[in-house]
Amino acid sequence: MPQPIATLDEMRRILAMSPGPDEAARAKAVARERLLTKPAGALGRLETITEWLAAWQGRHPPDIRRPRTVVFAGNHGVAARGVSAYPASVTQQMMANFAAGGAAVNQLCTTMDADLRVYELDLEHPTADFTQGPAMGEEACARAMAYGMMAVEQGIDLLALGEMGIGNTTAAAALAHALFGGTAADWVGPGTGVAGPALATKTAAVEAAVAANRAAMTDPFETLRCLGGYELAAIAGAILAARLGRVPVLLDGYAATAAAAVLFAADARALDHCLVGHCSAEPGHRRLLARLGQEPLLDLGMRLGEGSGATLAIAIVKAAAACHAGMATFAEARVDGPA
Amino acid sequence: MPQPIATLDEMRRILAMSPGPDEAARAKAVARERLLTKPAGALGRLETITEWLAAWQGRHPPDIRRPRTVVFAGNHGVAARGVSAYPASVTQQMMANFAAGGAAVNQLCTTMDADLRVYELDLEHPTADFTQGPAMGEEACARAMAYGMMAVEQGIDLLALGEMGIGNTTAAAALAHALFGGTAADWVGPGTGVAGPALATKTAAVEAAVAANRAAMTDPFETLRCLGGYELAAIAGAILAARLGRVPVLLDGYAATAAAAVLFAADARALDHCLVGHCSAEPGHRRLLARLGQEPLLDLGMRLGEGSGATLAIAIVKAAAACHAGMATFAEARVDGPA
Repeated sequence: MPQPIATLDEMRRILAMSPGPDEAARAKAVARERLLTKPAGALGRLETITEWLAAWQGRHPPDIRRPRTVVFAGNHGVAARGVSAYPASVTQQMMANFAAGGAAVNQLCTTMDADLRVYELDLEHPTADFTQGPAMGEEACARAMAYGMMAVEQGIDLLALGEMGIGNTTAAAALAHALFGGTAADWVGPGTGVAGPALATKTAAVEAAVAANRAAMTDPFETLRCLGGYELAAIAGAILAARLGRVPVLLDGYAATAAAAVLFAADARALDHCLVGHCSAEPGHRRLLARLGQEPLLDLGMRLGEGSGATLAIAIVKAAAACHAGMATFAEARVDGPA
Repeated sequence: MPQPIATLDEMRRILAMSPGPDEAARAKAVARERLLTKPAGALGRLETITEWLAAWQGRHPPDIRRPRTVVFAGNHGVAARGVSAYPASVTQQMMANFAAGGAAVNQLCTTMDADLRVYELDLEHPTADFTQGPAMGEEACARAMAYGMMAVEQGIDLLALGEMGIGNTTAAAALAHALFGGTAADWVGPGTGVAGPALATKTAAVEAAVAANRAAMTDPFETLRCLGGYELAAIAGAILAARLGRVPVLLDGYAATAAAAVLFAADARALDHCLVGHCSAEPGHRRLLARLGQEPLLDLGMRLGEGSGATLAIAIVKAAAACHAGMATFAEARVDGPA
């Protein structure tokens, strides 16, 4: 892993200078949408997706030629507490599976004609067990964010963001609980499939994590440092970089959305260039989406992570852009308008 | 339009001899799904889609190499009553738009790499105004169904079914009202965008249609003849033929689903080889789906018809098949199972 030098203050500054939408491009999309051969509004969400794409790509017509799915992987000290149904060794083993093309996200990227990049963040060295204190030091957290920023290369026009990390729905629940309140149980779910006593262990770990770090969590970036993980910090960094680079983002499930929520808590407009690809079956995700004001594009009962839901949603965004760019207007097609 | 000779009794016989699912292929899909590198059930609906595909394609692994979208078009006598926001001329004009590649479904088929076929059914001769008596004679209805059957060619492995026909959400509402009861208002919605007095006219037309044809509607096929239209009869025929040919079906919006509902009313298992691609914003669609026990794959506020929702859902079915066929097993990838 390269060693960019970064501080959380730099990240705060980058968030503060995030550009807004291109309203001229959005207005062109709205205007063209009205002329296309369909009743007004009949393409439903596809129309608003197109407008969002134009606004955040900063061009009209928007278009999707180089979609990319990025999966960040990290390990979590809290995994040693038995919060997952799977051993922490699975994170590393899945790297080989991604490289060999055997994971779900590989097949989904092929189907969507999307590029896949997987970045592992120091898997040999998990974060500290956050039930005892901060998961990361300032430098490690900022470095993971900077690493995530570097994954947003020029020329990508849609970025699907996912993660792999045994234990990271525990980190997601802790982040959501710290950022949005409620009880730990509100935010904890089965993850990879824990139930009964293991689920109680997971809930207790989330409660302990928030209690142990309360004094240190003076702002959302500090919360990320205390309760996040390397892959979650990298996702937050990638979201920041995508905003700067005019790359619209599709967020994946619970863990990726919890990472994004850190930025939302710092600035309620920080995720305006992001849509959520799929609502996870992990119950905390729907609750978290409500807090973020996000309506997921798909709701198919998936709960896999690894960018799967965001990648599947690329199809919807591509379809929206294709309809907008390719459809004839009423005038071009000589189709009568409303009587 | 060719003139196949057919009777509604033949159609009743074809329905009665519809083959069931291939349970051996389904069992193979279920067994393989358990071995793939993901927590059990983590791909949610993608897993049950794969099992459905295997059962109805009658092979394992199922696969989608030749998906096709078929759009049937017909004109409706009731359109002269002002039940649509658009003049009936639009049905014919949209044929030219489909042929030139300018409609939404053209772009969606390109995005999904699906073949598109559009069949027009005697657009110069609309059905009779069903507020005054049956929309079609027996021979015309059976011929339209047979025509629909012919659209299911060998080698297609997934069929998305849609329609185009000014006035056909009125026919859909009349069919749903006659088949499932309730009031006309329960089933009538804005369609292409009618409101106020025009919506009241539409509701009155549905009430009048059901009243005028009550005595003749002795079974669901007679109901189709009295209240349907050529394109709706063709969809019902295509669904029957797809079952015989082991081609799984994706249904589009309100009008296509109402045509399918005729078969469901005759035999509650008639649509087991069909999924619904998208829940239309037309309010009657959700109500109709509940009666059919169908959970749509997508819910994006679209209300366009022309096969758009079904075609968009091809992406989901392709993704499901790709994950199932292409993912590594835990053993192949040497990934640890649950701890």
